[in-house]
Amino acid sequence: MKLYGYYRSSCSYRVRIALNLKGIEVEHVPVHLVRGGGEQFAPEFVTKNPMAQVPLLELDSGEVLAQSVAIVEYLEETVPTPALLPRDPYQRARVRALVEMVNSGIQPLQNSLVLKELTKRNVDSTDWARLFVRRGLEALEHTAAGTAGRYLVGDALTLADVYLVPQLYNARRFGVDLAPFPTLLRVEAACLSLPAFDRARPERQPDAEP
Amino acid sequence: MKLYGYYRSSCSYRVRIALNLKGIEVEHVPVHLVRGGGEQFAPEFVTKNPMAQVPLLELDSGEVLAQSVAIVEYLEETVPTPALLPRDPYQRARVRALVEMVNSGIQPLQNSLVLKELTKRNVDSTDWARLFVRRGLEALEHTAAGTAGRYLVGDALTLADVYLVPQLYNARRFGVDLAPFPTLLRVEAACLSLPAFDRARPERQPDAEP
Repeated sequence: MKLYGYYRSSCSYRVRIALNLKGIEVEHVPVHLVRGGGEQFAPEFVTKNPMAQVPLLELDSGEVLAQSVAIVEYLEETVPTPALLPRDPYQRARVRALVEMVNSGIQPLQNSLVLKELTKRNVDSTDWARLFVRRGLEALEHTAAGTAGRYLVGDALTLADVYLVPQLYNARRFGVDLAPFPTLLRVEAACLSLPAFDRARPERQPDAEP
Repeated sequence: MKLYGYYRSSCSYRVRIALNLKGIEVEHVPVHLVRGGGEQFAPEFVTKNPMAQVPLLELDSGEVLAQSVAIVEYLEETVPTPALLPRDPYQRARVRALVEMVNSGIQPLQNSLVLKELTKRNVDSTDWARLFVRRGLEALEHTAAGTAGRYLVGDALTLADVYLVPQLYNARRFGVDLAPFPTLLRVEAACLSLPAFDRARPERQPDAEP
């Protein structure tokens, strides 16, 4: 399989973590989201993914999968061990709710396309990103206070952790003060002590820039 | 079970459709997102959902579930018939990718909180909403052209259809020209001919306003 991604894209980072946790080796194909106006808009990439976004997983059959949630659920279904979702339906739903608090509740409001459109309209895009990241992390911290053990939901790693760590990476890029989120920081430290998370870090990728 | 929702909220609309398709009766509790600055910010609601968002599903145990994706996946797992995801993992992933193209790719950029923050910053929020709805629907139409039969993925209803119909409702509210999306319009018509979709329409809800 091939993963089209970008070292700094938090959505690519999620998929890298999930692949590492599952022990799946893939070929990494870098798509530079800034250089030359963005390689994701190149016709040969848009043919593969009309949303012009990474990550994109290309299966050995040549079939492609977009959207990090669809990709990680696919990995969970096809490589069930180690499980990244609990067995109980209600607990699975709690994990998925935390995933979506990041996936649809925070990240879309601070992605590079949105920030570019805000700048065009004379809006301070960093201020905007901070507002929505902070608001989302507040809700996540509040929810996590009721669900967390060593990880975000109890003591076993789940997809919620896979989504948390890249979002905190983005929060730091925007200069969000993370002191009000002690549960999230504690879980992040536990995750980053694992090789699967550490190897997925943006700065460890071959396309990382200084 | 109780569903906290708002007639015009497209995320509530998705959950109403899924409940109807599964034949699950719930008590509907309206949360008015505009009146008095928004009932979703009332302390008793924020205690239930720190994101201050609808839909929120309250189980008979009193446990609550937020985030439409987490809710519909929970319904799919606990009431498997009729299935709203295909059996094959790759086909399931294609459905989930279409779901996320709406759930994280379009809706978050045009929800009422975001539009309010844009207005505060002197940005034309309708123009903004149209841009992102149009962009998302273009990608959806392009993808659907390769996956659709009677419905968005083949000839069986899936969660992708459950997400499409409320997003087209929103697109009309923002005055987006839908003529460039013939596949989406054809699938929408097929969906709305089904009682489960028809009964879920905003204008059919008890809290609907003239």
